[in-house]
Amino acid sequence: MTRIAICAPATPITRADAARVQAIASAEFPSLQLEFHEQCFAEAGHFAGPDAERLAALLDCANSGAEAVWFAKGGYGSNRIVAEAVERLSGRGAEQQWLGYSDCGYLLAAANRYRFAQAVHGPMPVDVRRDGGEEAVRRALGWLAGSTEGLEPGLNEQPAVAFNLTTLAMLCGTRFLPDLTGRVVLVEEVAEHLYAVDRLFFHVTEHLRGIAALRLGRLGAVPENDRPFGTEPEDIARDWCARAGIAYLGRADIGHDAANRIVPFDLAAGDARS
Amino acid sequence: MTRIAICAPATPITRADAARVQAIASAEFPSLQLEFHEQCFAEAGHFAGPDAERLAALLDCANSGAEAVWFAKGGYGSNRIVAEAVERLSGRGAEQQWLGYSDCGYLLAAANRYRFAQAVHGPMPVDVRRDGGEEAVRRALGWLAGSTEGLEPGLNEQPAVAFNLTTLAMLCGTRFLPDLTGRVVLVEEVAEHLYAVDRLFFHVTEHLRGIAALRLGRLGAVPENDRPFGTEPEDIARDWCARAGIAYLGRADIGHDAANRIVPFDLAAGDARS
Repeated sequence: MTRIAICAPATPITRADAARVQAIASAEFPSLQLEFHEQCFAEAGHFAGPDAERLAALLDCANSGAEAVWFAKGGYGSNRIVAEAVERLSGRGAEQQWLGYSDCGYLLAAANRYRFAQAVHGPMPVDVRRDGGEEAVRRALGWLAGSTEGLEPGLNEQPAVAFNLTTLAMLCGTRFLPDLTGRVVLVEEVAEHLYAVDRLFFHVTEHLRGIAALRLGRLGAVPENDRPFGTEPEDIARDWCARAGIAYLGRADIGHDAANRIVPFDLAAGDARS
Repeated sequence: MTRIAICAPATPITRADAARVQAIASAEFPSLQLEFHEQCFAEAGHFAGPDAERLAALLDCANSGAEAVWFAKGGYGSNRIVAEAVERLSGRGAEQQWLGYSDCGYLLAAANRYRFAQAVHGPMPVDVRRDGGEEAVRRALGWLAGSTEGLEPGLNEQPAVAFNLTTLAMLCGTRFLPDLTGRVVLVEEVAEHLYAVDRLFFHVTEHLRGIAALRLGRLGAVPENDRPFGTEPEDIARDWCARAGIAYLGRADIGHDAANRIVPFDLAAGDARS
């Protein structure tokens, strides 16, 4: 049995979300035991409970002996507990997997930098709400059960990481982001104007000189602006990469959507598939 | 006669905006000669002309012999020409004033860091559109004509800088932001959700350990979120300052509004008033 401990470091899911994910796991992944922490359903203003409650649940899951910690939902808030998580977990081994994306990237970054968990970008329980979301959940559960079918198809022998672009921008220059020199960086974004995406690329490419390359995932739900920005997303990425001397390697199959694929940090695809 | 050269490093104003500002200057500030560069009215997608045109106009104004360069409008885009501005202007003296705010903060930061102009946060020609905007324009023109009446009232003997919070966040860790150690940093924001403001504070306070203190200007036009964030703006600032060991000194009289006051970078108020 592989135990999966689930908490919500940012915003909550509902019991109905959890039940749907549990039903898929029970029916199709008998080797997995999902353990939803009560904190997944907590509410305090914007967050799934106050900082102290979210941190305590994260530490409960981390220290539960589970093979993996799965983040229930992003939104906003995991940056508010990342410093304490680093303080409490640094120095232990990195055998446990931590799986999630979007706002949970703060925790994935820190886990990777301080080597207290194996960070993996991939779907979360909340994705069950999306059109086709059950497939996203199956992809994550499959990965947790040992399948490599859900891996991002462009992964190669170079170590890679994947981030939401805003999350990566907020991590740049902080003590929570690992040194990305020599890695391929995959980025995706949701619900940001193209001018804001352009601005985020200015910031991250200033910081990420020395990475192996960048690939662009999907920009979902781009809001209408008062006038067209005048440049397409891929041209934005290409332009800023060129200015910073970063190789741009095309699209990545990640995003805030049901098709979002799995990117194990650092692990070359050959390792993951072996 | 004091010559003021005006260009638009980000987005354009209209000829009607310029005419209204010119009328105020002609009637009330006879010592000022405003020179609106044609580029102020250029349009290319989101921007006041392509990067090359905006850069050329900025250099025209910088090299015109004018006592001050006044930025017509923010929006987004001055970061796209800041690297070239640094390359072309570094090494000259800092006698010329550069006046603006918001997105123009990229240029103010670089001018301050590379000492090729005296950076000043303050109203711009576009502010004439606001309710009470003529007063904002008069405040800027008064400053350019030698008055210190428009200075931010909390300035004291400590050198200060002022930034839009997003602009500051995008500058953090880049080669364009001066060392802010020992300075009082004033920030303001507009049209950002409170969770995004909280996130920006996470980023900037990670970067700004060592500043003398922080003061919070106005957060204008905060969009409604799907649920209340649960924390007031000043508590957000206080919380992140406390976490980073930064002194929080209360509110600042700056913002995206007609009341926006003047903050000359680095200059202690005593110097400005002397």
